[in-house]
Amino acid sequence: MTAQETTTQPAGKPVGVAVLGMGTVGTEVVRLLRENADDFTHRIGGPVELRGIAVSDLGKDRPGIDRALLTDDALSLVNRDDVDIVVEVIGGIDYPRELILAALNAGKSVVTANKALVAAHADALSEAADNAGVDLYFEAAVAAAIPVVGMLRRSLAGDRIERIFGIVNGTTNFILDAMTSTGATYEDALAEATRLGYAEADPTADVEGHDAASKAAILASLGFHTRVNFDDVYCEGITRITAEDIDAATKVGYTIKLLAICEKITGDDGEEQVTARVHPTLIPSSHPLASVSKSYNAIYVDAEAAGSLMFYGNGAGGDPTASAVLGDLVGAARNKVHGGRAPGDSTYANLAVADFGDVPTRYHIDMLVNDRTGVLADIATRFSAKGISLRTVRQEEQERHSHARLIVVTHQAREADLRDMVAELEASEDVQKVSSVIRLDG
Amino acid sequence: MTAQETTTQPAGKPVGVAVLGMGTVGTEVVRLLRENADDFTHRIGGPVELRGIAVSDLGKDRPGIDRALLTDDALSLVNRDDVDIVVEVIGGIDYPRELILAALNAGKSVVTANKALVAAHADALSEAADNAGVDLYFEAAVAAAIPVVGMLRRSLAGDRIERIFGIVNGTTNFILDAMTSTGATYEDALAEATRLGYAEADPTADVEGHDAASKAAILASLGFHTRVNFDDVYCEGITRITAEDIDAATKVGYTIKLLAICEKITGDDGEEQVTARVHPTLIPSSHPLASVSKSYNAIYVDAEAAGSLMFYGNGAGGDPTASAVLGDLVGAARNKVHGGRAPGDSTYANLAVADFGDVPTRYHIDMLVNDRTGVLADIATRFSAKGISLRTVRQEEQERHSHARLIVVTHQAREADLRDMVAELEASEDVQKVSSVIRLDG
Repeated sequence: MTAQETTTQPAGKPVGVAVLGMGTVGTEVVRLLRENADDFTHRIGGPVELRGIAVSDLGKDRPGIDRALLTDDALSLVNRDDVDIVVEVIGGIDYPRELILAALNAGKSVVTANKALVAAHADALSEAADNAGVDLYFEAAVAAAIPVVGMLRRSLAGDRIERIFGIVNGTTNFILDAMTSTGATYEDALAEATRLGYAEADPTADVEGHDAASKAAILASLGFHTRVNFDDVYCEGITRITAEDIDAATKVGYTIKLLAICEKITGDDGEEQVTARVHPTLIPSSHPLASVSKSYNAIYVDAEAAGSLMFYGNGAGGDPTASAVLGDLVGAARNKVHGGRAPGDSTYANLAVADFGDVPTRYHIDMLVNDRTGVLADIATRFSAKGISLRTVRQEEQERHSHARLIVVTHQAREADLRDMVAELEASEDVQKVSSVIRLDG
Repeated sequence: MTAQETTTQPAGKPVGVAVLGMGTVGTEVVRLLRENADDFTHRIGGPVELRGIAVSDLGKDRPGIDRALLTDDALSLVNRDDVDIVVEVIGGIDYPRELILAALNAGKSVVTANKALVAAHADALSEAADNAGVDLYFEAAVAAAIPVVGMLRRSLAGDRIERIFGIVNGTTNFILDAMTSTGATYEDALAEATRLGYAEADPTADVEGHDAASKAAILASLGFHTRVNFDDVYCEGITRITAEDIDAATKVGYTIKLLAICEKITGDDGEEQVTARVHPTLIPSSHPLASVSKSYNAIYVDAEAAGSLMFYGNGAGGDPTASAVLGDLVGAARNKVHGGRAPGDSTYANLAVADFGDVPTRYHIDMLVNDRTGVLADIATRFSAKGISLRTVRQEEQERHSHARLIVVTHQAREADLRDMVAELEASEDVQKVSSVIRLDG
């Protein structure tokens, strides 16, 4: 058997590209497409031609852009016969979903940077791509130019992924890093992030962990060959993290990071399940993830044969996102010229998504308790009764002698049991206040 | 235009695989192929079947391997009609070259882990693959499962690579790390590496930097779209690094690592040139590469739009190498089933390889000079006369007052000028001995 190179594109005919959206990323994509046009021709095996750019505001001044390329009718642009690949960098969900589905249904390959869309509607998008036999690329949806999507789809395609975890949101890492290095409050660090352009005017999607949860859904889906949607991801943001939490963590050699954690666990029935979650996490300050500063991202992938791999870089911003989009565009264009398809959706393993209550986690609980003889023993007994082992217990003297500060770090236990335990502590007469509850890892 | 999915393989017909070599990597490849067979079927879109394994010693005991699969006639196995993909994990150059060329010429795709072969004969291999329209994959040739080959070929295909540098040889990193952390001599650290299996019985290829140079040639070729062969790489190993060098470096906040450095420079004619080199390098101990311990690898890729990306993991060993081989195998098998070709060789940029003498480098020179008034001024004048600026000069008192120790760190200068300067120092009556010369980076 000899493989044949299949040309679905008459030789020399250019690949037509439509770019939807002309924000930071779209502007960079268009600039690099033009500046590096010769390189693209060589790398693809034929020229790429920009057919049009869909924008919402035709009147806006866009220096260096041929106005004839601009349109505010994105759907018509998508449907043009001379458009082979659609690049979606608009953002949002419903509108780009409609455009992408139209593109795929019309046999155009799609490159998108839209994590929220991919995490919410992967099934519909993937089905449309499969039906039309075209490509759906979304490297830029996770950690920009850090090529973790391509790695999971291709490089590790012969391995078994066990765990994926790391820092996948630059805004929250910037805020937590600022709080850690300067002692700033959450509010002040957020204001600084906004001032410097690391946080958007409405920072909700970042600080509440939604952005990271979309990425966790995508990573878990790819890594475990199982559909994991945004709604399947347990998600807790950083808005409740205080300067006191950071200070207490630093003092005992820990750093607080917002981590996305995707892993396989064994269910009660002995079957493998998958879980994905995003929450503030205490990690040892000696862990490489603890040194990831500013808005950088870093992702660990643990695989059976490959072992532990780590990828680090700038996970956001116009340029790095454009790099990922253009890498995908070269791939999609190569397939238009030479035939073949990128690895599509792979959900054959179809594992159950674990109930988060069943997932083993570890808690760091900081509380104020009555300062009376025997209180420590009583509280330890409560943990023991729930089957939760303690790794460390630290009691600190307080200025007022009516209470003591008690910091408890548990071993791994069922999330639901730990949560019940916290509720029980909060209800206990011996506990004046549970000041903070943060999960631990690493 | 609609892309069509092209099947070059009748539906359901398995993809036949031959494995050449049954050492550490081959054994793992065969084991994982068998254990994860169902996964491979799903990921590829059809089953993979192992047709045979070529070994040099048919008599050797190989538990769990069906003896009917074994042959000592590799060429006949390669040429079997039911073999679609050949996996080469023998090592060496001439013999595997002959087998791989036979496979490619017969229309079989090839997956190899053979860095020495790819770095020495890329033109011939690539031409044969192109002529037959088949795939030549070699992710495992550089840093095992760290997917830097795939990243350069695909993920960063829309970007411009400016620099690639890092630790790409586990054996030498193990030795240097042991010398740094324990104060051991080179000889003792090498003995320990050999005892633990990190160094081969004949460690020449590793300790002389040849292995790293092959990887540098591959990385530079991929990154700069230019053919860079093994012979184009300047190569200096670690055999002359002494415990004193390590100690002196540590004292001033530096760590010695064997780095592969590939970069673009501007020639005298204003044209871009490429350069690749491997040598012991002083880097600040605060640099992330300085913390890469044991036999781990870490590679930085600096690209125009993506910025600086870093990849870290286990860069050697049977399991990680098998992971990379199997990822390639899934890719090659997908193309056999669905049509299409992996991105082939891309040398269109065809930049000149710079003469190493013209490459800007920085030197750390440790010497003993006569302890007389004015000697420092005289030596500084010599550097200045050659147009080499000094960044730091440190003079240390010695027990015997007949000489002083002088440690000079230069700014960047032409490698040839720095080398001439060292020769001039060695010839100078004021210099009793040039104890060590190590380049700096980072």
